[in-house]
Amino acid sequence: MTATPHFDRVALIGIGLINSSIARLIKRDGLAASMICCARRQETLDEARALELCDDYTTDPAEAVRGADLVVLGVPVGAIKSVAEAMQGELQAGAIVTDVGSVKATVINDLRPVLPAGVHFVPGHPVAGTEHSGPSAGFAELFDGRWCILTPEEATDEVAVEKVRAFWAHAGMRVDLMDAKHHDQVLAITSHLPHLIAYNIVGTAHDLETVTEREVIKYSAGGFRDFTRIAASDPVMWRDVFLNNREAVLEMLGRFSEDLASLQRAIRWSDGDALEELFTRTREIRRSLIEAKQA
Amino acid sequence: MTATPHFDRVALIGIGLINSSIARLIKRDGLAASMICCARRQETLDEARALELCDDYTTDPAEAVRGADLVVLGVPVGAIKSVAEAMQGELQAGAIVTDVGSVKATVINDLRPVLPAGVHFVPGHPVAGTEHSGPSAGFAELFDGRWCILTPEEATDEVAVEKVRAFWAHAGMRVDLMDAKHHDQVLAITSHLPHLIAYNIVGTAHDLETVTEREVIKYSAGGFRDFTRIAASDPVMWRDVFLNNREAVLEMLGRFSEDLASLQRAIRWSDGDALEELFTRTREIRRSLIEAKQA
Repeated sequence: MTATPHFDRVALIGIGLINSSIARLIKRDGLAASMICCARRQETLDEARALELCDDYTTDPAEAVRGADLVVLGVPVGAIKSVAEAMQGELQAGAIVTDVGSVKATVINDLRPVLPAGVHFVPGHPVAGTEHSGPSAGFAELFDGRWCILTPEEATDEVAVEKVRAFWAHAGMRVDLMDAKHHDQVLAITSHLPHLIAYNIVGTAHDLETVTEREVIKYSAGGFRDFTRIAASDPVMWRDVFLNNREAVLEMLGRFSEDLASLQRAIRWSDGDALEELFTRTREIRRSLIEAKQA
Repeated sequence: MTATPHFDRVALIGIGLINSSIARLIKRDGLAASMICCARRQETLDEARALELCDDYTTDPAEAVRGADLVVLGVPVGAIKSVAEAMQGELQAGAIVTDVGSVKATVINDLRPVLPAGVHFVPGHPVAGTEHSGPSAGFAELFDGRWCILTPEEATDEVAVEKVRAFWAHAGMRVDLMDAKHHDQVLAITSHLPHLIAYNIVGTAHDLETVTEREVIKYSAGGFRDFTRIAASDPVMWRDVFLNNREAVLEMLGRFSEDLASLQRAIRWSDGDALEELFTRTREIRRSLIEAKQA
């Protein structure tokens, strides 16, 4: 089964890092006859317009999806349900709705009762990003060489799934299909926990009395600065990720804390062998990652 | 007081990332009439020789320091004492000994009883590095734009301190002087704790049953990969850092764990405001870091 990544009219709901990258890609390669984007705030919409990202601009989700055969939801996962409710009356039969949210099970549960019959929902997650946000942050090459995960339910129309797959493949992504719950576990360890930890250590550093913020910044080249980059990611998007993937994040966090307590004990009791064993093992994982061209 | 960063004979003890970068810098800019390096393993020494990093090569620290007016200790901090004991009989009067270790108080305590009177010890820490190690990993520009911290004791010869300062300034570093204990606290939060956490999460990910290592690697673009880079740093060097800066690391780790428990609670009880507040605050720190040109 093959499909072409071409559409008559694409509606981008939200125009942040991901959707503005999609807009640039679609425009660059002529993947849609026309394209509209929708933002909640007029200011964001004006920014998108100044960048000439789309053909049409609106703050009304219902207006945005009218006549669209592809709708891409690129808003924080906590906002997806209300956006879907606002647009449901105008979705045309046969339209494909997809999203780019970092959590999949709750999004599916939120949208299932809202989307009309005859509209195909293909939950998606392009695993790509930077710490920057907003319409200006996007670029067409963002997805190149990265992985995209689709988590359709069994009953989902296969042609719709293939069409979304073809779109992401065109964007340079390798596409996997998996169960939504498993997606949420995988991302809890590869993305959500790393962000939580980065946010946390930057907060810890900020609250110290013995070391000034100026010192933290000056000497950050020793490792800290990598964490500040991650901890600069969009606050609302990440708030919603943790609120919507609670179970998997708490599970991974529990394991992380256990392991950290064990490391703490090794330091306290000068167990150099235990430290060296772990530090040697983790180095191997980096090598595997470089070999898989994900470094 | 000014000094020139020129020496008659430089002895580099250890020829890993830092000392091999120093060798390249000294050679490039003609900062020494001659230069010798010393490695414990013949294999490392052969690698340094093949790269033509120095004029002379030895596995004997005593031979290395003979006639040197600058000795740079670039070995794991746990090995510094035994190396100093091996070379102490050959150190010439007036020679400057400096080090590049990530911990300062224990190094000073280790060396104080070992170094002969008339030899000037200037403890140093160029805060720069990559996740790579060994003679091939170095490059002369490694230090450019970063900070270097010197932690001389009050009685240390000022001319010797100024000479070391001039050397690092020539390497492109901005040089600060501070108390060794304070250095160890600052680095515990800006470098040691970030490394510990990165090592820990990579270990946690490796041990999961529900998510395969292959999946962790494939989807690492979501944040995890930044941690794998840090967790690929030299295992022995980092083992020694934690064993030698125990008190400060345990203090910072305690605070980190407290803060993490509080975040865990916010997730469990869906306290979105607490999450968003922290995530917004940490973003500001990234901005300060970019403004300070340390990003």
